[in-house]
Amino acid sequence: MSDEEISERLTEIGETIIQKVRNDQVPSVQIPSRTTSNIVYDDNAKCYVLGEKKTNRDAGNIRHVKRLAQMLKVASFCKSELMGSERHVTKRELYYISESWGDKLKFKTQDRSDDLVEDIEAMIGRPREDLKINPKAKGSIYGDITLKFKNPKGETMKVNCLDSADGQSIGPRTCEADIVECNADKVIAIETDGMYNRLMEENAHEKFNAVLVNLGGQATRATRRIIKRINELKDIPAYVFTDSDPWGLHIAMVIIAGSAKSAHINERLATPDAQWLGVTASDIKNYKLRSDELRDVDFKRIDELKDDPRYANDERLVNELDRWEEIGKKSEQQALMRYGFEYVVDEYLPAKLEELGAPGF
Amino acid sequence: MSDEEISERLTEIGETIIQKVRNDQVPSVQIPSRTTSNIVYDDNAKCYVLGEKKTNRDAGNIRHVKRLAQMLKVASFCKSELMGSERHVTKRELYYISESWGDKLKFKTQDRSDDLVEDIEAMIGRPREDLKINPKAKGSIYGDITLKFKNPKGETMKVNCLDSADGQSIGPRTCEADIVECNADKVIAIETDGMYNRLMEENAHEKFNAVLVNLGGQATRATRRIIKRINELKDIPAYVFTDSDPWGLHIAMVIIAGSAKSAHINERLATPDAQWLGVTASDIKNYKLRSDELRDVDFKRIDELKDDPRYANDERLVNELDRWEEIGKKSEQQALMRYGFEYVVDEYLPAKLEELGAPGF
Repeated sequence: MSDEEISERLTEIGETIIQKVRNDQVPSVQIPSRTTSNIVYDDNAKCYVLGEKKTNRDAGNIRHVKRLAQMLKVASFCKSELMGSERHVTKRELYYISESWGDKLKFKTQDRSDDLVEDIEAMIGRPREDLKINPKAKGSIYGDITLKFKNPKGETMKVNCLDSADGQSIGPRTCEADIVECNADKVIAIETDGMYNRLMEENAHEKFNAVLVNLGGQATRATRRIIKRINELKDIPAYVFTDSDPWGLHIAMVIIAGSAKSAHINERLATPDAQWLGVTASDIKNYKLRSDELRDVDFKRIDELKDDPRYANDERLVNELDRWEEIGKKSEQQALMRYGFEYVVDEYLPAKLEELGAPGF
Repeated sequence: MSDEEISERLTEIGETIIQKVRNDQVPSVQIPSRTTSNIVYDDNAKCYVLGEKKTNRDAGNIRHVKRLAQMLKVASFCKSELMGSERHVTKRELYYISESWGDKLKFKTQDRSDDLVEDIEAMIGRPREDLKINPKAKGSIYGDITLKFKNPKGETMKVNCLDSADGQSIGPRTCEADIVECNADKVIAIETDGMYNRLMEENAHEKFNAVLVNLGGQATRATRRIIKRINELKDIPAYVFTDSDPWGLHIAMVIIAGSAKSAHINERLATPDAQWLGVTASDIKNYKLRSDELRDVDFKRIDELKDDPRYANDERLVNELDRWEEIGKKSEQQALMRYGFEYVVDEYLPAKLEELGAPGF
């Protein structure tokens, strides 16, 4: 969403207040409730979303006054300092910036400013990245995709992600850049840095006509955003390639269906038609991979995922959860290296991409 | 060091063995000992180095035979599969690759293959990056510096690090790229991702004629390598900008003087004339920064650093360690945000760079 549109939504928050004052009412705003009881799984959207419950923040309630004032200040700060500028702030910076707002408005602890940012996200229905409050950068992107963005001096630049030695780092400008061209027909997101490098070096981006995304573990919001944005561009499917354990599978699931914590904004972060490519539990046997014993904490995680609505309707995933329990083993994606450098691109990935009906297979 | 030179050094290991066999001697190699008792602080090099002690690995000793054979296999693998190619492997990949070497040679656990790689590093006196065994990528680099490297297809490419939205990700190709041009006259390495982005957005690279390096916490070896290589290019000084606590200071120290664990290779990783820029303990008071209480674990860390030879001869650093103890507080670099977006580039950094005698100040 453009800076102008976001500015309008932020202005609406202030206008609600002004309107109430003019009508001799007590100023207040309605905020979608983010308590657990209001987080519901939406079968259509295939992610957690917020229910109908709203919280009232009311200047007539002495306990609410400060929070209401802080919310207006944060909204005003985003509008006047960030919208229309080339600046982005982190949540941490926002917390420190509040120091300059005086003793009455400054935040005592960062969890309070973080919480307010989530309130505003829920109210305007847009992720905080649109407010230019950006998550930590992690991960990188490589492939035939051209991004258009403004550099710190406000000059418009275009960069093709193949023009880099190890990929473009996914920071605030990359995750929000205009995608002006994407000649790839799929995205492959990879859990580990080592496997990402392997795929680059074996030319997987060219062989599979893919954009490679290095997650570096659990995907940050910035990385989820860019995957979703590529996916939305022209239905470019995304495949998530992880270790063979419940943690790896759940890395894929957070990309697919978002997290409960981001229920208020999942529809803007999740890529519902992304697919988990593997390494599956079945692969451990089928590919004779070196494996380790599952530990108690892994078994516990499997049980948790079985009770999770994001998994309930996906027979394939439930079967794989069962399979891990059955064999009591887990493997890493790099275990495929036992068959040499090329195996993962010559054998493993083609088999998997075909199984999942990927374009070109 | 070029692939040819590394190949020669690896070949020498094999030739030592062959020579002994020809002379009817028991095959053996001498390996610099990496035990604690052989790690000494070198006042001239200003880092930990290895002493004179050597370990003998001897085919006449049944306990050594397997390790010796594995060492030759790893050296041979690096020579035949990696040297002269565009491939890099992680230590983890090497461990899995050993699966294909048969039951007698494969590594039981990764710590054994890691240990062997360090033996080879110590024997040839070069870091494993020169063997194309690369560390995890983390961090990114932004500024007017042009890197030349080969892409996965073996094509030579040149990229200026200003031509990216959020900086180039520092992976295997970036950390070893030829630096064909560097118009900056200093490097500023930054602990946190948030402050790195702030400096980018406030045009610090241009204002200070600097290359900005995002450490993202403790610097990886890859990041330390690129800082050292820029520094060596033409005495370009490096400044490390961290949080104000003993952990932040030690992030700088590992860049300056290396770690005890990498004693066998510190002279290739450390940048002895890099300087810690701050945020210092004194800055907390001088700049009235929001601070937190030091905890027990922080005080303990201060005591450890005071006993560390890397700090002993640096009066400024010892004073700052004392200062933290005295005030009992720590701060984050982003606490400078209380003075607004520009303060860090308009006031704080110029004052610090002048104090440290940086070029242009």
